[in-house]
Amino acid sequence: MGAERVAPADVRTVACVGAGVIGGGWVAYFLARGYRVVAWDPAADAEQRLRHLVDRAWPALTELGLAEGASIDNLTYEAELADAVAEADVVQESAPEELELKRRLLADIDAVTPPQVVISSSTSGFGMTEMQVNCAHPERTVVAHPFNPPYLIPLVEVVGGEQTAADVVAWTSEFFRLAGKSVITMDREVPGFIANRLQEALWREALHMVAAGEATVEQIDQSITDGPGLRWPIQGPCLTFHLAGGQGGMAHMLDHFGPSLQAPWTRLESTELTTELRDAMVEGCEREAGDRSIDDLVAERDRGVIAVLRSLGRA
Amino acid sequence: MGAERVAPADVRTVACVGAGVIGGGWVAYFLARGYRVVAWDPAADAEQRLRHLVDRAWPALTELGLAEGASIDNLTYEAELADAVAEADVVQESAPEELELKRRLLADIDAVTPPQVVISSSTSGFGMTEMQVNCAHPERTVVAHPFNPPYLIPLVEVVGGEQTAADVVAWTSEFFRLAGKSVITMDREVPGFIANRLQEALWREALHMVAAGEATVEQIDQSITDGPGLRWPIQGPCLTFHLAGGQGGMAHMLDHFGPSLQAPWTRLESTELTTELRDAMVEGCEREAGDRSIDDLVAERDRGVIAVLRSLGRA
Repeated sequence: MGAERVAPADVRTVACVGAGVIGGGWVAYFLARGYRVVAWDPAADAEQRLRHLVDRAWPALTELGLAEGASIDNLTYEAELADAVAEADVVQESAPEELELKRRLLADIDAVTPPQVVISSSTSGFGMTEMQVNCAHPERTVVAHPFNPPYLIPLVEVVGGEQTAADVVAWTSEFFRLAGKSVITMDREVPGFIANRLQEALWREALHMVAAGEATVEQIDQSITDGPGLRWPIQGPCLTFHLAGGQGGMAHMLDHFGPSLQAPWTRLESTELTTELRDAMVEGCEREAGDRSIDDLVAERDRGVIAVLRSLGRA
Repeated sequence: MGAERVAPADVRTVACVGAGVIGGGWVAYFLARGYRVVAWDPAADAEQRLRHLVDRAWPALTELGLAEGASIDNLTYEAELADAVAEADVVQESAPEELELKRRLLADIDAVTPPQVVISSSTSGFGMTEMQVNCAHPERTVVAHPFNPPYLIPLVEVVGGEQTAADVVAWTSEFFRLAGKSVITMDREVPGFIANRLQEALWREALHMVAAGEATVEQIDQSITDGPGLRWPIQGPCLTFHLAGGQGGMAHMLDHFGPSLQAPWTRLESTELTTELRDAMVEGCEREAGDRSIDDLVAERDRGVIAVLRSLGRA
């Protein structure tokens, strides 16, 4: 009989496999949250680059507030993968984004990590279903996708593959929540997950505009940093458009501006605005708004935008 | 011989035609920047709603810093359109987004406004070419598209129609720049201009995801506010991906991750990554980065994200 998996609250040691920009960012984050971190990376100069990255991130993390006992000294670098994962309560894999490499590496990690330990992957696009194929214990492999830099951006998208156990998805979500992350637990695999999918739609449109000579790189960036980008840390795209509907909110927005969805504003084909979709959007916004009236949300947005502008020295 | 157009720096009086959420937001902004504002709107309760909106926005504008002489008392409300524009140095039209209405209203404004005065429209999607058709002096009509709320979001997209004079586009850009706005001057009409086009691509993708049951409204908003939305007030989508390429920047990003553009991450068809497009993206990022190294940009982004998180009480 194998050892039992520790509770998410009892995780003490995180193994970070792959220590580039994302893996190194995870190392810095876990150290700042008070964990012991053991890192491994096959590249020759990986340890040096990792320590440079952590050193560079540490002042910011200190300023944001370290967890009790947090220290750069809690980082160990191991030359052998098996040594790196031996004492781990959870393993975070952050290898380059190549499917065959991820498959092999996850199988290697799986072979040397005690079977009760969760192995999660930072992949930004592959589903765990296609990555876990060579693992002997695929049920404990899961995706936990961060945003760059993982030591500052709160979002982590957690989603399992076909062979992932449901309790592993739940365990992983709880672990990252307790570690201070903003977790989205997805109940199905979607290529690109949620945030990258949205980000990618915007990015493709930007490429189309540059390709067609409709906008320059600088205009595209300025249009976001000085425009809708100032609202998005405060209210996401749905709540933003909830307010575009005036006091009528999302319902008014969709019922009155729905037809303009058909306008050729992007190269992305519009979805059909069925009654079901309309209702899902309206009810979602109402749930999100909760007790807050449109006026409350407007005031909240304005306070937020002002705070953001001031914090960036742009007020 | 008609009167000469005042220089952008000598504008004292702005006529705001249409005083709803956008028009009223413009009124509040121009008052805060020290202009005299004359407003007109055909709705029965428009004046009352306008004064409510300005009163509500004023504390925020005061906090951000009023221009010398700025006062709510510099707002006049006129019952007749002709009286509203009689003394105006520039007219800002913010009527509902209906083409026929905009055409009629712009022709009405054009008929009663001295011909040297620029008439600009807040339209979020129509081109001035299709709106200026009934104007006797179409050469002084131009689009100046703001973002909600116009009294806080800096971006204004300026673009003329086929009959707009080039010096009117230049005058309008300069006026809004002097009025404190972040101006993008477009050299051609594009449906949705730049920022709305990007925003709309993201929005359509969000609708597709909700329609397909891949994500909820709340997950979509959370994925932006806690993810890439935290970077976008600081660095737009191009500079963001410039950093995703590590020290190799946008060139590395496109040369190595270009093929993943073909992955089915959005319903938006990808553009072909020609050499020309690749070079345009790389050179644009390099121009934007200027003297700043990748390390400089990373440090800048991190400082910015921390400032944003702290300002929103989320650090």
